[in-house]
Amino acid sequence: MKIAVVGTGAIGSFYGGKLAHGGRDVHFLLRSGIAKIKRSGIRIRGKKENFHVARVQCYETANAIGPCDLVLIALKATNNEALLQLIPALLHQRTILLTLQNGLGNEDFLAQHFGDDRVMGGLCFICLNRISPGLIEHLDYGHLTIGEFIGSPRSRTRAVAHEFQQSSVVCQVVDKLMEERWRKLVWNIPFNGLTIAAGGITTKDILRDASLHSAALALMNEIIEGAKSCGHNLTGDVAVAHMKRTETMGAYKPSTLLDFEAGRALEVEAIWGEPLRRAQANGAAMPRLEQLYALLKSLNARARMRRRLPPSIEVRNLQRIVRISTRRLQEFANIACALAWKQKQPEAEIASVPAVSVLIVSDRRMAALHKEFCGLAGPTDVLTFQHGELVISAETAARQARIFHSNLMAEIQLYLLHGLLHLAGFDDVTAHQQKRMQRLQNKLLATAIHGL
Amino acid sequence: MKIAVVGTGAIGSFYGGKLAHGGRDVHFLLRSGIAKIKRSGIRIRGKKENFHVARVQCYETANAIGPCDLVLIALKATNNEALLQLIPALLHQRTILLTLQNGLGNEDFLAQHFGDDRVMGGLCFICLNRISPGLIEHLDYGHLTIGEFIGSPRSRTRAVAHEFQQSSVVCQVVDKLMEERWRKLVWNIPFNGLTIAAGGITTKDILRDASLHSAALALMNEIIEGAKSCGHNLTGDVAVAHMKRTETMGAYKPSTLLDFEAGRALEVEAIWGEPLRRAQANGAAMPRLEQLYALLKSLNARARMRRRLPPSIEVRNLQRIVRISTRRLQEFANIACALAWKQKQPEAEIASVPAVSVLIVSDRRMAALHKEFCGLAGPTDVLTFQHGELVISAETAARQARIFHSNLMAEIQLYLLHGLLHLAGFDDVTAHQQKRMQRLQNKLLATAIHGL
Repeated sequence: MKIAVVGTGAIGSFYGGKLAHGGRDVHFLLRSGIAKIKRSGIRIRGKKENFHVARVQCYETANAIGPCDLVLIALKATNNEALLQLIPALLHQRTILLTLQNGLGNEDFLAQHFGDDRVMGGLCFICLNRISPGLIEHLDYGHLTIGEFIGSPRSRTRAVAHEFQQSSVVCQVVDKLMEERWRKLVWNIPFNGLTIAAGGITTKDILRDASLHSAALALMNEIIEGAKSCGHNLTGDVAVAHMKRTETMGAYKPSTLLDFEAGRALEVEAIWGEPLRRAQANGAAMPRLEQLYALLKSLNARARMRRRLPPSIEVRNLQRIVRISTRRLQEFANIACALAWKQKQPEAEIASVPAVSVLIVSDRRMAALHKEFCGLAGPTDVLTFQHGELVISAETAARQARIFHSNLMAEIQLYLLHGLLHLAGFDDVTAHQQKRMQRLQNKLLATAIHGL
Repeated sequence: MKIAVVGTGAIGSFYGGKLAHGGRDVHFLLRSGIAKIKRSGIRIRGKKENFHVARVQCYETANAIGPCDLVLIALKATNNEALLQLIPALLHQRTILLTLQNGLGNEDFLAQHFGDDRVMGGLCFICLNRISPGLIEHLDYGHLTIGEFIGSPRSRTRAVAHEFQQSSVVCQVVDKLMEERWRKLVWNIPFNGLTIAAGGITTKDILRDASLHSAALALMNEIIEGAKSCGHNLTGDVAVAHMKRTETMGAYKPSTLLDFEAGRALEVEAIWGEPLRRAQANGAAMPRLEQLYALLKSLNARARMRRRLPPSIEVRNLQRIVRISTRRLQEFANIACALAWKQKQPEAEIASVPAVSVLIVSDRRMAALHKEFCGLAGPTDVLTFQHGELVISAETAARQARIFHSNLMAEIQLYLLHGLLHLAGFDDVTAHQQKRMQRLQNKLLATAIHGL
């Protein structure tokens, strides 16, 4: 089996390293740290694991790797958009995509873009610490549980497990992958969440504090009910078993807390948002999870602001008159937001908003806003509000696209970038300002479209 | 009416200042800032209020004020223990105690110590900012709602309202004080709580974020149900009205958030803990409040640790063999903990625990612990555990009290202080250490008992 590893953080380095150390044909796709890993290889150190892969096959582009039989996906779920560019070159007709990511929604994302049948999921039960590129500290555990996204295990599922087992990774095949994901969430949701929201505490602090202990247990039972509403047959025993196991862990800081403390983005949607939405869609009451999710989203956004990272951006289509691909627009918006952020002026609005929201509306709604906020009649193409709201009229975009022989998507992308540049502190009031903004806008638009 | 004001922060300075400015006979009891207020008086400044009380009658002790007709209590609820020492000298037979404090439990505390009949409560609807002692910025609102703790309004209730009205404070008398307190909590619990737990955000940030907005609304409805369970007839309209009013507030930071950011203790029990306990005792399900309370308690405790303030201490009686006044012991523990904290050695355990818990147990339980943790048979007087647990045997204390012709309370106080000194880093292994610890212990015991 030719294997690619996408994402060479702690998880990718560990399992990819095990496979390479076990003699498999492993190809690592890397962004940062490639020079160091080429030079020094991958070292896993710890009481139970201690080995060194001297020669690591690593690459900067997916094209340089080419089609593989198995792709291990170990990026953070917050970077999933990047997979749309990275994966295609790795595919042949029967390539298996195995996501080792946390939470819910990652298999669905892969299935949506690359087909249901390719997708498998893996749960990593492991405590790791990435010290530097290629240097991973192994603290505890290490077993893997894998399953098919659709249907029961097949011969290929066992073949993948076999690859791991041959490289001395304890790897178990499960019938019901999603049930196992929920079972793991019964731990991750309370412990990863409360250690952050309660002010950066350990699992031990939660167990010692009567209020937090009971909050954690109540959350666990809520998740179990949520899982049941989604058709997964978990019982209260899961909570009891998780609690018992946590008692032997000592003062452990979950990985997301370490991420938060180190200023890295949290996988808020995969771990808290998606389970909440699924359970609520099935009618489960999730008051505790709902509150925790709202708090973590806010804490994450505030941390991004403190770290001076670009705000997250969300595109929502509020009209049905003109047909629009929200997904494509979202991908463009992610890149455009990062570009506009890089150009931001001192005191730019974009530096103080936790999130930008892009609303695609009808001419009718746009005309109402135009009247209310600018005192002007009729619709307009784009309105930029303080606090990071961009409102775009889809109908005006369609009209202008016809006039200028452009196309709808290109037109909306232009407005979106224009609005972002306003948030980044650029004005177009004087002719000079207008010329400057126009020039920058053209340059960034070309870059963004190239990046898609 | 001779009026005393206990606590001259923002609230005490404002309402006391209004009364003094209106020509009432007002006496301020002050700790810090007395020199400045004696020199410069009290100044209230803002768009709606702008006045100066040049000559302020202020005092360092309650004795210097003597008995009053009305005592306004404007200390933070976290300092209620101090009232036990401050109030007695202000009382004559018909003195009214009017608490202007936040949350639930303050009237009960006063009633318990000074009699039901004295107690009235007031709700302050006001936005203030204390800039320095005697200098208060008035941002908005200012009306007061007062009522009797027990029963319906009486002539004295209206007389007190009249005092305020004569000094141009809008003051309304209500029939059901506790219902009004709950009505105010419907706002305070979500907005004061979520602005802190979500990372230091404003009321506007909550309204703008769909998840936080719905979390706030859901909390409001939960509080309304909690109030109902306690016999207070609030309806869903209260939440709607609060939300509407909040929209006009702009980017407001509630006072508890300012307290938290400035490193001051939060009134966690009065605002979140007590309402939770009351509603739960009446069978209401409060999942959101329960979780928020647990988080805020932890955030508050962590902030205390960062600020290097003494940990909170809680005394719990887990045995029924020997009769003990938990309240008296709690009062002693508060003072003893502050004293031990002041003496702490570098790296003392007490500096890293968010709370100390003192458990009073039977000889049987003590013997079990003694065996388990020290390998020794039979009970002992006191065991000190890492992370701030002190376990004291009530039966051993009673026995020793007989032997040493001491009394039970004094004996337990001695053990408690001894345990605290261990947490503060003192040992009694060598003879020299023992002598040193003994000397300190005697000194602090005398101080603590004097302070009670």
